[in-house]
Amino acid sequence: MKIRLKDYRIAPGEEVDLKKRKTLVKPAYRSKDDYREILADHVARLSDLQQRHYAANSYGALVIFQAMDAAGKDGAIRHVMSGVNPQGCKVSSFKHPSAIEAQHDFLWRATRELPERGQIGIFNRSYYEDVLVVRVHPEILEGQGVPEHRYRNDTLWEERYRSIRDFEKHLHANGTRIVKIFLHLSKEEQRKRFLARIDEPDKNWKLSPSDVVERKFWKDYRKAYEGAISATSSAEAPWYVVPADDKENARLIVSQIVLDLLEGLKPAFPTVTADREAQLQAIRADLVAEEE
Amino acid sequence: MKIRLKDYRIAPGEEVDLKKRKTLVKPAYRSKDDYREILADHVARLSDLQQRHYAANSYGALVIFQAMDAAGKDGAIRHVMSGVNPQGCKVSSFKHPSAIEAQHDFLWRATRELPERGQIGIFNRSYYEDVLVVRVHPEILEGQGVPEHRYRNDTLWEERYRSIRDFEKHLHANGTRIVKIFLHLSKEEQRKRFLARIDEPDKNWKLSPSDVVERKFWKDYRKAYEGAISATSSAEAPWYVVPADDKENARLIVSQIVLDLLEGLKPAFPTVTADREAQLQAIRADLVAEEE
Repeated sequence: MKIRLKDYRIAPGEEVDLKKRKTLVKPAYRSKDDYREILADHVARLSDLQQRHYAANSYGALVIFQAMDAAGKDGAIRHVMSGVNPQGCKVSSFKHPSAIEAQHDFLWRATRELPERGQIGIFNRSYYEDVLVVRVHPEILEGQGVPEHRYRNDTLWEERYRSIRDFEKHLHANGTRIVKIFLHLSKEEQRKRFLARIDEPDKNWKLSPSDVVERKFWKDYRKAYEGAISATSSAEAPWYVVPADDKENARLIVSQIVLDLLEGLKPAFPTVTADREAQLQAIRADLVAEEE
Repeated sequence: MKIRLKDYRIAPGEEVDLKKRKTLVKPAYRSKDDYREILADHVARLSDLQQRHYAANSYGALVIFQAMDAAGKDGAIRHVMSGVNPQGCKVSSFKHPSAIEAQHDFLWRATRELPERGQIGIFNRSYYEDVLVVRVHPEILEGQGVPEHRYRNDTLWEERYRSIRDFEKHLHANGTRIVKIFLHLSKEEQRKRFLARIDEPDKNWKLSPSDVVERKFWKDYRKAYEGAISATSSAEAPWYVVPADDKENARLIVSQIVLDLLEGLKPAFPTVTADREAQLQAIRADLVAEEE
């Protein structure tokens, strides 16, 4: 089944209603074997595209992941991006800001992690946390010197949305191509995954009591995501809301999004100009001459 | 055929003579198919170990690659490390230092790229360039404010070796485990690879006239490598001189070195203490209670 990305892409200006967007859809695969085959095909094409992207050295590619806990960000990154040469792919995980990071504006630490030209950058969380978890828990701002009257109304968040839009527009104008992926998980599926994790010794280290606390703010998070996604999905840096209750299907959609991003850059090995050809032939003559 | 790493490891204090060390040895594979099978097995084990290493979050692992051009650094990184989750693996390529980097001591820019605990860091070139290319072309130091009399004798290089030894000892004491790999290529094999590159549109973008110029300093480089490897191979941070004229065999040896490094860390998923078990059960109770 063909994956139609426009089903998941948020149009610029669209008001997102996450309750109307499904967390589970008819999968793009027919069986687990079929899933593995499609994913392997996507990963192989991604690996090939990434080599050209690296050689072309024209654009940077940035993929931003945001989601509630256990939505499958880590798994999607692992399954989709393993197979890609890590020399051309850098994953940055944004956790609690350090004391120094918190002393800067909220975009600062992300700029230091942006992908170079020819690279793929993966942001596992991002500056969007500053309009998501921080919006749900505005008391976080107290420690960052933002006066309380600023975040008691919506001005601060609108300002931050504008900062983000302007930042992403600037990046686009300077050669970074951006997609943003929200893994859309249902509250019930998160509960099931948390419960399953408790019994798995290889996974329960990932679970912390705070994860369960955050569930109690589910509606606030939904509102914050709706606000952020609606305000910042642009032609240059679109948001995709990816149904995430089916992990495998989510990975296929995610890999299709990354494939489309790279294919859109039409990456090609540098062409040899006449000057370059002359240079190469001079090098050849030099090397051949050594034989004598 | 079993790969015996001690054939390639440089003992602490050993005086390395690269002319006596082979650039080509009997391969560890019997056929190309056999090679692919062994490599796939190594990569799968590496991927598994890396997941545990990431979860254990105890040590950082650092793999440093140094070699002459076309020795196969990029290819080894791609073939050995593709398959590993890029979320736990960061490749840093050290090119010409920027103006700001050159204003600092020669270790400074590398410290900013060191792997976190739980991560694998790959250095494609490293601070060793500052006792290799810089030793072969000491005029580079002029732009860095080092007085000429310092590098007209050997004091500077001995000091830099000591800095490196002390730095690596410090990293080891603080939880970073280091291996250093020199891909040992013959001058004739480099010539063949350069010539082959000229005719391959997918590869000739990698070739620059300066690569051919550097060949003329082959003996100086050999001397610089011998000096650096002899002075800095330690029990904590050993050097491996890997025969590199056979790319495939070199990749098998490299993957074995990385496997040994990670296996030596005995990475395991965190064990559940009694306190942690109680915490997990409290989380479970919370989640189960939601049902009602």
